[in-house]
Amino acid sequence: MNKIISDKVINRLTLYHCILTDYIEKNIEYISSPQIAELLHVDNTQVRKDIALLKYKGKCKVGYKAAELKVLIEETLRFKTVKTAFIVGAGNLGMALAKYDNFEAYGFKISALFDNDANKIGLKLNNKEVFSLSELPKLASKFDAKIAILTVPRVYAQEVTDFLIKSGIKYIWNFTPTVLNVSKDVQVWNENLIGNFLQFTVNHGV
Amino acid sequence: MNKIISDKVINRLTLYHCILTDYIEKNIEYISSPQIAELLHVDNTQVRKDIALLKYKGKCKVGYKAAELKVLIEETLRFKTVKTAFIVGAGNLGMALAKYDNFEAYGFKISALFDNDANKIGLKLNNKEVFSLSELPKLASKFDAKIAILTVPRVYAQEVTDFLIKSGIKYIWNFTPTVLNVSKDVQVWNENLIGNFLQFTVNHGV
Repeated sequence: MNKIISDKVINRLTLYHCILTDYIEKNIEYISSPQIAELLHVDNTQVRKDIALLKYKGKCKVGYKAAELKVLIEETLRFKTVKTAFIVGAGNLGMALAKYDNFEAYGFKISALFDNDANKIGLKLNNKEVFSLSELPKLASKFDAKIAILTVPRVYAQEVTDFLIKSGIKYIWNFTPTVLNVSKDVQVWNENLIGNFLQFTVNHGV
Repeated sequence: MNKIISDKVINRLTLYHCILTDYIEKNIEYISSPQIAELLHVDNTQVRKDIALLKYKGKCKVGYKAAELKVLIEETLRFKTVKTAFIVGAGNLGMALAKYDNFEAYGFKISALFDNDANKIGLKLNNKEVFSLSELPKLASKFDAKIAILTVPRVYAQEVTDFLIKSGIKYIWNFTPTVLNVSKDVQVWNENLIGNFLQFTVNHGV
């Protein structure tokens, strides 16, 4: 697949967006690339290169207008496009993600949760209901949900994945510590928390 | 900083480790690079290159011995080195991470949680106690904890970070959607969930 924007650039643009949000909250109108670079401990050239990708030019000496740059990042990363998703597995992590209010600002809309535990079915979290997993195929059509966030226990991950795919799910954001076996028309994004943590410890000698 | 192993390689090695764990559980003795490549939808050459870094050679036609390759990855990524950490912020996400049993297999030991909410202090989750944030400096020395997992609400993130650094914390795994302002002797690892999600949606046209 040819990537439109590299993963690293997307990652950094999201962080710039966080910084811009802070600046705007503090009523600071302009931000310069060295200010961004210093906060992220990255090179100033890198920041300028990333922002040049957005075809945005700062003003000499004062830098970028925070509000304008923020909107440009939102357009480039398509924050306004609604991306409907289900959380599958209403355990601790699934519940935490359901309660995470920040997602909607990025166009990420969690419509419902699913679980097999009768004690959880019917619960409401942050206006999202927990349904029985058996209802997922019907609700996937109803909500036009193509994305599932997988937070079931590791041992059920593959079995639930097979069911999700049969139900029309095309994209799986996988939080389980397992590699899912799926056909090539289904995209899996491994949220490899452990891998991310080890990147940190291995290279810093922690 | 010169990275010992690139982030992408560490990420993939962790995923290979997940696959090997599955194979061993299923009593499958050997695994080949094309089998790993197919599960991850990556190129076979890539898998062989990564494994060559471990200086491990497979057997012709049968592939790698799963148990041996698994141990080699554990050694390379230092799973046996205990990395003591505190969770700061006993909200939904902090609680979910505290209950996540899988961390210890990677040498990642969460010793305690911290919060300012009197209703949470004294709670025990998965044998880990929630302490008042004011006790952190004392307990950081006691447990020799240098890593904090930051899961406080966004508005408190910077203030709590300043306190953590004064308390001797050197590494912050930041789950808050904010960029922390820290001096260069403190390392921050941004667990940019939103950035990870957008990498997925932007490049797949979701």
